[in-house]
Amino acid sequence: MQYVFDFDYKHATPPKELKGLLGGKGANLAEMTSVLGLPVPNGFTITTDACRAYMESGWPKGLTQEVIEAQQHLEHSMSRRIGDPDNPLLVSVRSGAKFSMPGMMDTVLNLGLNDKSVLGLAKQTSDDRRFAFDSYRRFIQMYSRIVLNLPVDRFEDLLKEAKKKANTTSDAGIPADVLEELVESYKSLVQELYGSPFPLDPALQLRQAIEAVFSSWNADRAKAYRAKEGIPDDLGTAVNVQAMVFGNRDDNSGTGVGFTRDPATGAKGAYGDFLPNAQGEDVVAGIRNTQPLSALESYFPEVYQQLMDIFKRLETHYRDMCDTEFTVEQGKLWMLQTRVGKRTGVAALKMAVDMVEDSHIKLSKQEAVMRINADNLDQVLHPQLDKAGGSLPQHGERVLLVEGLPASPGAAVGKVYFSADSAVSAAADGEKVILVRSETSPDDVHGMLASQGILTSRGGLVSHAAVVARGWGKPAVVGAEAIHITGDSFSVRGVVSVEQVGGNNPGVISQDLPERSITVKQGDFISIDGTTGEVFLGELPLVQSQPPSEFYTILSWADEIRKDKLGVRANADTAADARKARELGAEGIGLCRTEHMFLAQDRLPVVRRMILANTPAEESEALDELEKVQKEDFLGILEAMDSLPVTVRLLDPPLHEFLPDVESLAVKEATEGLTEEEYRWYEAAQDWREENPMLGTRGVRLGVVKPGLYAMQVKALMEAVLQRFAQGGKPIVEVMIPLVVSREELQLARGWTKDAIDEVVGTDETGFKVNDEAVKIGTMIETPRAALVADQIAQEADFFSFGTNDLTQMTFGFSRDDVEGKLMPHYIKLGLLENNPFETVDLYGVGELVRIAIQRGRKSNTGLKIGVCGEHGGDPRSIKLFFDAGVDYVSCSPFRVPIARLSAAQAVLEKQSIVTGP
Amino acid sequence: MQYVFDFDYKHATPPKELKGLLGGKGANLAEMTSVLGLPVPNGFTITTDACRAYMESGWPKGLTQEVIEAQQHLEHSMSRRIGDPDNPLLVSVRSGAKFSMPGMMDTVLNLGLNDKSVLGLAKQTSDDRRFAFDSYRRFIQMYSRIVLNLPVDRFEDLLKEAKKKANTTSDAGIPADVLEELVESYKSLVQELYGSPFPLDPALQLRQAIEAVFSSWNADRAKAYRAKEGIPDDLGTAVNVQAMVFGNRDDNSGTGVGFTRDPATGAKGAYGDFLPNAQGEDVVAGIRNTQPLSALESYFPEVYQQLMDIFKRLETHYRDMCDTEFTVEQGKLWMLQTRVGKRTGVAALKMAVDMVEDSHIKLSKQEAVMRINADNLDQVLHPQLDKAGGSLPQHGERVLLVEGLPASPGAAVGKVYFSADSAVSAAADGEKVILVRSETSPDDVHGMLASQGILTSRGGLVSHAAVVARGWGKPAVVGAEAIHITGDSFSVRGVVSVEQVGGNNPGVISQDLPERSITVKQGDFISIDGTTGEVFLGELPLVQSQPPSEFYTILSWADEIRKDKLGVRANADTAADARKARELGAEGIGLCRTEHMFLAQDRLPVVRRMILANTPAEESEALDELEKVQKEDFLGILEAMDSLPVTVRLLDPPLHEFLPDVESLAVKEATEGLTEEEYRWYEAAQDWREENPMLGTRGVRLGVVKPGLYAMQVKALMEAVLQRFAQGGKPIVEVMIPLVVSREELQLARGWTKDAIDEVVGTDETGFKVNDEAVKIGTMIETPRAALVADQIAQEADFFSFGTNDLTQMTFGFSRDDVEGKLMPHYIKLGLLENNPFETVDLYGVGELVRIAIQRGRKSNTGLKIGVCGEHGGDPRSIKLFFDAGVDYVSCSPFRVPIARLSAAQAVLEKQSIVTGP
Repeated sequence: MQYVFDFDYKHATPPKELKGLLGGKGANLAEMTSVLGLPVPNGFTITTDACRAYMESGWPKGLTQEVIEAQQHLEHSMSRRIGDPDNPLLVSVRSGAKFSMPGMMDTVLNLGLNDKSVLGLAKQTSDDRRFAFDSYRRFIQMYSRIVLNLPVDRFEDLLKEAKKKANTTSDAGIPADVLEELVESYKSLVQELYGSPFPLDPALQLRQAIEAVFSSWNADRAKAYRAKEGIPDDLGTAVNVQAMVFGNRDDNSGTGVGFTRDPATGAKGAYGDFLPNAQGEDVVAGIRNTQPLSALESYFPEVYQQLMDIFKRLETHYRDMCDTEFTVEQGKLWMLQTRVGKRTGVAALKMAVDMVEDSHIKLSKQEAVMRINADNLDQVLHPQLDKAGGSLPQHGERVLLVEGLPASPGAAVGKVYFSADSAVSAAADGEKVILVRSETSPDDVHGMLASQGILTSRGGLVSHAAVVARGWGKPAVVGAEAIHITGDSFSVRGVVSVEQVGGNNPGVISQDLPERSITVKQGDFISIDGTTGEVFLGELPLVQSQPPSEFYTILSWADEIRKDKLGVRANADTAADARKARELGAEGIGLCRTEHMFLAQDRLPVVRRMILANTPAEESEALDELEKVQKEDFLGILEAMDSLPVTVRLLDPPLHEFLPDVESLAVKEATEGLTEEEYRWYEAAQDWREENPMLGTRGVRLGVVKPGLYAMQVKALMEAVLQRFAQGGKPIVEVMIPLVVSREELQLARGWTKDAIDEVVGTDETGFKVNDEAVKIGTMIETPRAALVADQIAQEADFFSFGTNDLTQMTFGFSRDDVEGKLMPHYIKLGLLENNPFETVDLYGVGELVRIAIQRGRKSNTGLKIGVCGEHGGDPRSIKLFFDAGVDYVSCSPFRVPIARLSAAQAVLEKQSIVTGP
Repeated sequence: MQYVFDFDYKHATPPKELKGLLGGKGANLAEMTSVLGLPVPNGFTITTDACRAYMESGWPKGLTQEVIEAQQHLEHSMSRRIGDPDNPLLVSVRSGAKFSMPGMMDTVLNLGLNDKSVLGLAKQTSDDRRFAFDSYRRFIQMYSRIVLNLPVDRFEDLLKEAKKKANTTSDAGIPADVLEELVESYKSLVQELYGSPFPLDPALQLRQAIEAVFSSWNADRAKAYRAKEGIPDDLGTAVNVQAMVFGNRDDNSGTGVGFTRDPATGAKGAYGDFLPNAQGEDVVAGIRNTQPLSALESYFPEVYQQLMDIFKRLETHYRDMCDTEFTVEQGKLWMLQTRVGKRTGVAALKMAVDMVEDSHIKLSKQEAVMRINADNLDQVLHPQLDKAGGSLPQHGERVLLVEGLPASPGAAVGKVYFSADSAVSAAADGEKVILVRSETSPDDVHGMLASQGILTSRGGLVSHAAVVARGWGKPAVVGAEAIHITGDSFSVRGVVSVEQVGGNNPGVISQDLPERSITVKQGDFISIDGTTGEVFLGELPLVQSQPPSEFYTILSWADEIRKDKLGVRANADTAADARKARELGAEGIGLCRTEHMFLAQDRLPVVRRMILANTPAEESEALDELEKVQKEDFLGILEAMDSLPVTVRLLDPPLHEFLPDVESLAVKEATEGLTEEEYRWYEAAQDWREENPMLGTRGVRLGVVKPGLYAMQVKALMEAVLQRFAQGGKPIVEVMIPLVVSREELQLARGWTKDAIDEVVGTDETGFKVNDEAVKIGTMIETPRAALVADQIAQEADFFSFGTNDLTQMTFGFSRDDVEGKLMPHYIKLGLLENNPFETVDLYGVGELVRIAIQRGRKSNTGLKIGVCGEHGGDPRSIKLFFDAGVDYVSCSPFRVPIARLSAAQAVLEKQSIVTGP
């Protein structure tokens, strides 16, 4: 097995496709060198195979010899030798994994310097000993930290002393002779801390540097990053050894970063920064004020023209916007790196659409659709926090208080209020409010409605707060367990990070501050980001977004691709949701939850009367009252979704969710005592209370216990249908029975439903005839048993809709509210689960049940329509699994509909094996 | 399709095997007539096909003609005609379904009587007009009630008047002329109530009676009975029309019931009752004092001899004990019915063993094993209530207060106490105690131990009370929701039934008494039956049982059959349980739950210290203390199970189960305030509290959160192992990880376990070497996901053990504690589930997961050992499913071990297609 490849090695396949072997950086360096013939400082790549072999059983056999040969080839091509006392070659040693892990892994620069070659370096630079010794002391410091694992502070102390001695405050102000002394002090320090002298042999330096890069793959921060980004741990990194060029050699030198288009806006034309007489790190660190890339033209007109030509070639070659680093050394342009560039959502959309029209790229519409991801769409759909600006309470410090679960995307800014009532009254006074609660309940809904956003300290991504907020498209962060609410303030012990924004020295000041405790009082401003789960102190500016025209173009292309293959509906419980969903392209409602209608403040008392009814007459009176209001709800939804299917799920949650909390009532009884009404609630709440409500009397089981309830709901629906017909509308409804485990249950519920339909239609005078075709009756598949006996259940069902939330809970035995905040982070960190199965559907367990259910269901009922209405219906990876398994449509919250449309198209394309880009 | 068969019809297969077509009664009548040639009054059977056709679409075409032909055949053979004014044939019309449903369905006797034939009947009986008109008035009354659906009380009123008129108190005292008048009054009453005259046409009588029997199949009480007994609703009943003979015709007549052996003891020799000059119902109703069957010999020596011969032939033919009804009419013996007789457990065992030796029956041992069922064994294992005797508080009324869930078999009698402490102190005073609680918790364990039995008003068959009681073999009834406990008494509103015991008129007095409310105070006696769930008022006598020698014989035969095919282990958590289990034949422990060890009164404080630990040192100190006591527990168990495998499950339940109840603490805090310690508990209990604890942080997830816990348990176990070796014992242990969902979890837990083993064995001085062979490490399969990804999990497992309780809970989404008492009865009644899936494993859902897991698990690990340790491991039907699916052993509570041994043998035999008996 060959472990080392020169950049100019002639690979059988284009090197840009060999990222797995060469890493991203190495693959692109080889592509530029061997395929495009661009001016790249020569070098070689040690493959990820070598890294994996090293992790498995130490330094691979034969690797030393290959490195020596590659080094010789490199020295030959550069006409310099590493460690040469006269004309030394210096090299950089950099990691480069298949997937970019910015800042996570190690780099060693200026390798090859020692007491002799430093003099050679000085010679090369017109005897600039200051430059040479400054490079040498930097090399020793970097090497000591990264390769020898020595603490950096003692080196910094020596550096400070040197500055003091030189009577200067900047590194650049230290004269050559002081630097020479500093190098000696550094070497003594290495001897003291490391127990051996600093290695002066360049071969040893190289070997140790390569090992250090290999090892950095398994550093804690790298592992944590991979866990977060879902990058497998067994890939390993490649190592790139490259000849160094110096943009800071003289005034005829410089360095810059360049994008072939504007990565922020997507606008055509080169974009970037340039610094004359500077090194790459000067550009990135922001120590000196950079100049726009266009300034390069005035310094080096020919180089600029050459760079523009290269940009064009790169775009044509990669068929995408490229991000490059380049250096000009003594008037010669060197390309140090290129890759397909990261971009904002707006830019991604604009570039994808533009490149379909660009004659040198000629992207197909399919390729353009594959270029866009869910984050791109999210960014243009929801307001975002401008993290770089704003009025910050503490001298420009941006304090990230806590990271909770990202429950509902978008950002919100407002004053903190701790009760629904105070939130409502503050909002009525014109204030922008963030409602902060330990968790929310139906009693808080008016406060949630009045708020810009919601923050809770408990609960998971299907908690009440999360579900309600998503339904409204209102930003929410939930389960922020680090905050402690006490009356009219909350405190955070151990803030996540503090960053300086603006000013002379922006960037992270500190992270993980277990000691720093902050208290936020009622009326204080906070800013929440429901897309990331971040909660900031103070009032960050909001960037209100309006989707650009390219958003609609891409989605129309996506629709062309997925049409007739995978439908997209929305989960919507109100007319407003339904309108929003339709506006965002939903082709119907896949899940209309009727319980949210029960939770409105004016209805809850009626629902409680129904539950508490002592006589059939009392129950029936309450049901009649509910029927009237349910009908109104349905009317609005059917109007908004006219001529598109609306799937109405009959009542699902356990009844005690509509009753007050037992514990508070118990405490009240023991202290102030209960009113007569409260006492009845107390009794009922105790009666209906369950150990594990998720697995208790809910869904169709409620129907078995209170059959009048389901009949009422169906009647309300059918009355709304008839009224819509009378108004000239075209209502299409489907009735969905939740939590079914057996054919017999669905048969029974189907009977109730049909009876209720007949009852309403029998009294109809509009002449509308409802038959089996008109109202489809189906079921959720959300228990493992339903999936396993889908062949039996399908005999009674016109359609299935996978409730993948509950199916995941039961298949894993994970109560989402209990484990998602507490246990799941451990599980992800320890690699016990690949990802949170509530975000991306579990391929082998839940996914297997989905496949089994579809196969068995269609076998016994070939006409069965199958959808998905769990949260996973809006998750790109899950949509792919559902499409492959054979579902007809997915349904998700209105604001996820564009993402689902895109992902559906991508699933279709992936199945057709259309592969794009580099 | 032929709907009617004469009893002497020559069927192609023996009629006794045609119970599905002819019903049990019809099949045996045909068998006696056509095969055995016994003296049976002739008749014919209308098949269940006819009944099903009738239920589907009314009176079947062609049935009338078939009935006419069969009637003519019958009349011809009896030389009498139905309705004949001179020599009438009377017939009985009786239902007869495939499965016996005693008392559930309808019978019409004396059919064929009318104003003319009644005179013929009188002639036949030497002009006994009293007999003839008494038969006629009985016929009208019975026909009116059953066929015409008229209320019976008005007829009774007329009968009372007639007695008054005749100045007599007995039916028999009414003279012929008064009876003639009564018949006229009856007929007028029919005209009044029914609106038409009483039908005098015998053909119409017959047609209507047949229809009435068909319809009685769907009567509410018949449906309820079938639901309870698990008899399918779509079988229908056959109808038997048979010539009547009269045992009360004269003194040369008589009637009796006879068993070929004693059904109570199994003793050889005929057994039964006889009454001269009497009808069958006189024997059954117990109005007259019957004589033992042997008395028949003195009345009718030849008939007696003939009957004994018939008994021998029946036993030889049916190869089992038969139950018969016979009548002697004017010196001639008629056999009216036979069937394989019901018997007690003791009798079943004795007969099965005897018949293997009996030369005329020659049962094989396999057949003998197939003859025994679980109830037979249960009866001889546990004390039983003698429901016919005892000191009853209310004048010989036996009051069935309530029916709860049968949580732990056997019966117990004692005084009611409502707290663990009062139970303990009463028991210390020598009283027999029944502990009555709404539900039990670890704090009640000492009270449970001191009691004869336990009764709770809440919780299901896996509630704390149920599990603990079963473990101890202590009778328990749980979830008796109709009782309301208030301090030191409980009340029952609506008792189930009141029966008169002994006296002149024993039997049910009344049932379902919603108005009758009874209060039971502390110190009052109750009697509970944990096998049936019944709770009686007062002190019923207990029959203490000791298994007869045949019990051991049958089980030894069962063991021969199942050996090497299906093992039987026990679930046992203490040395006492383990000894009991071994005594009852367990071949090891399949599930040793370590949490019960944590719940003992002296350990709970230590467990709480461990949970509350603020520092690793505090936690580790508490763990060390637990390790010591756990070691002692394990030592006892390993000693009791020496040389047999013991599977130890590491801690499973959520930690808050070891903390006090949050709500009580909340109330206490709001009223009296909490001590500092209580306040810490309160905080911890809130912290660990979960919405759905069953799906929360428990099982291996606990291990992830508190890894020291699992290590402690394994160390305690290994220390016990080493000590047992040192003592010369042969301990065999298996470590079982609960609630696994992924291979990675098991891999992690396996690592902890191995480390802990190495740590202990490393310090060992006994020289014992533990290697992979010595301690097997496996996992429970109790989440649906574990079953689906069994191929992955099996790579890390030496064995699987199905936790079918949790698997059932998650597959159905049924929280057993919540749904079993409340929802399940609705579900069974409505036919939504065939049976309670917590009693018999669900064939299509959970069973499918079991099959999938075994197949996938063995595919990737061929040496995988597979067991079942859920409650289903002791259920006969479930054992069959498990054996068919390929498990190696089942494990159940110690007292179920004999049943499991028997059922395992039966499962083996059924798979070998050995079919026995009628």
